[in-house]
Amino acid sequence: MINFNAPSQYPLIGKQLVQVNHVIDQRIKTHFPQLQNALQEMANNGGKYIRPAIVLLMARILDSRINSERLIKAASSIEILHMASLIHDDVIDDSPKRRGAVSIQSRFGKDVAVYSGDLLFTIFFDLLTEFGTDRDSFQRNARAMRRVLNGELGQMAARFDVHQTLMNYLRNVNGKTATLFSLAAGEGATLADADRHQIFCARSFGTNIGISFQMLDDLLDYSSGQNLNKPVMEDLATGVYSLPLLLALRKTDPAAKLRPLLAKKRQLTSTDMVHIQQIVQTSGALDETEQLATKFTKKALDRLHELPANPTRHLIHELTISMLHRNH
Amino acid sequence: MINFNAPSQYPLIGKQLVQVNHVIDQRIKTHFPQLQNALQEMANNGGKYIRPAIVLLMARILDSRINSERLIKAASSIEILHMASLIHDDVIDDSPKRRGAVSIQSRFGKDVAVYSGDLLFTIFFDLLTEFGTDRDSFQRNARAMRRVLNGELGQMAARFDVHQTLMNYLRNVNGKTATLFSLAAGEGATLADADRHQIFCARSFGTNIGISFQMLDDLLDYSSGQNLNKPVMEDLATGVYSLPLLLALRKTDPAAKLRPLLAKKRQLTSTDMVHIQQIVQTSGALDETEQLATKFTKKALDRLHELPANPTRHLIHELTISMLHRNH
Repeated sequence: MINFNAPSQYPLIGKQLVQVNHVIDQRIKTHFPQLQNALQEMANNGGKYIRPAIVLLMARILDSRINSERLIKAASSIEILHMASLIHDDVIDDSPKRRGAVSIQSRFGKDVAVYSGDLLFTIFFDLLTEFGTDRDSFQRNARAMRRVLNGELGQMAARFDVHQTLMNYLRNVNGKTATLFSLAAGEGATLADADRHQIFCARSFGTNIGISFQMLDDLLDYSSGQNLNKPVMEDLATGVYSLPLLLALRKTDPAAKLRPLLAKKRQLTSTDMVHIQQIVQTSGALDETEQLATKFTKKALDRLHELPANPTRHLIHELTISMLHRNH
Repeated sequence: MINFNAPSQYPLIGKQLVQVNHVIDQRIKTHFPQLQNALQEMANNGGKYIRPAIVLLMARILDSRINSERLIKAASSIEILHMASLIHDDVIDDSPKRRGAVSIQSRFGKDVAVYSGDLLFTIFFDLLTEFGTDRDSFQRNARAMRRVLNGELGQMAARFDVHQTLMNYLRNVNGKTATLFSLAAGEGATLADADRHQIFCARSFGTNIGISFQMLDDLLDYSSGQNLNKPVMEDLATGVYSLPLLLALRKTDPAAKLRPLLAKKRQLTSTDMVHIQQIVQTSGALDETEQLATKFTKKALDRLHELPANPTRHLIHELTISMLHRNH
């Protein structure tokens, strides 16, 4: 995957990404100096800035000369919202690491992590009140945040459910992951004064790459090596069944082997987990996951191609394709 | 303290409080039925609805016939914001109980509690986009939420600090507690089309009763009985030094006894804590706390009396006085 962490490598929006980074740095202020440092480290280290890049690129497709302060603030706000989710996800997963560095929660404890995620939510809304054009834009953003959380909660409600449908999985992924991609693309288009159909295409592009992005994440978790992958282990231990496992459960033979193992729920041993991973790997579910992801990527590109053809559109096209081939 | 949980007892705003309760009930929707039930229980059981009542009463002082949907939504939004804070506070305190019922986090776990607090934040903002009149109102609300969190973080930064100044304590209390009272009073006045000075008085009233409310909470924690009070124990265990303890630390003799005990930090035993509580009780700090709280209450009433004299103002006056005498 292309690394947005080095904005200077991306001449089209490199300067703007530096400005985004600067806005984020400026906004993260608290009466708690150590926390502020930790948040700033998080903002500077390893963030791929995919979501702000989508805001900037989508705006640029539709208005090649766009370079407003409002656009930079919109791009920053979505990264801040994403950071807030990451911090709260870490509280839940007890993750010791985040973006290569020690996570906020393992460094300062759960309490600081909960509040600092909350603080980022408020910084998000504060920025929103500055770049938002009207009541509609506030509502779109507030509702996007709500869809993200409903996706997270939907995923939790489905924990340990071997009968979970693909539709349910898709609805949750659509909420927890695709919403921010869709918001990013839609806000970029809106700020570039796009027309309704263009905004619709931008959002739909975002939704579809968001879904394929999550599916490929799920795929990568299951695909590499013979040893137990940490994300797979964490998911199985908490009863989160991602796409490869759900697809394997739809096949008679693998399902017959998987069900008695999954029935152990929180009592799964490492050996059980390795076993589950191997069953999924040999079931053909990984190929199916990749095919599904490709389908969503194709849908995203179809929408993209309804927007004006120009070098920026070409760049997004390439980034989208490269997503499909990351770590392969 | 007068119980807003039985709105029918308050003829002036009883019907409106029922509407507030209805709005909250309607808005708490998730893809997680059990969580929804728990949130609805929380909304219906034992909430004193002090903050919505302040919104409604303050609006009514300034416009005795006010009864708009926007006002109900504003009142509901502040209670939802308060509920969100309570849920996240419980995650941090590991509280098993909340409002007499089992807390969200002890019933569903930390993960659900973190996300459901987040969900309430988004419901707050969603409501805000409906009743907010302009960019200013969005900013006021977004910034209020931020001040609440900065207060919480400030309190954390001061943990185990025996040199914490009263100014620092006040700044944190102003953020974490008084902000919502000030927001409630200010939004009520704004929605009643009050003039600038009236809005200023309303906010200042809110800030001052908020501070005295918190001081009296701190006082009640320390004052009752010979046995160790649970809130005192929780505060000492986490290094949160509230007003009675800070005032005792300013007195030569009690401070000399307290410092070596407090130096044990997280290693304090129950016996140590009982000892600390007794030193505070006999130091004269409780009287001083009450005097300070009375000072802030008086300031609040002075501001209140700059607003039009009418039965609603009389009612708020009485509620404010009754706050000073709760549980005494």
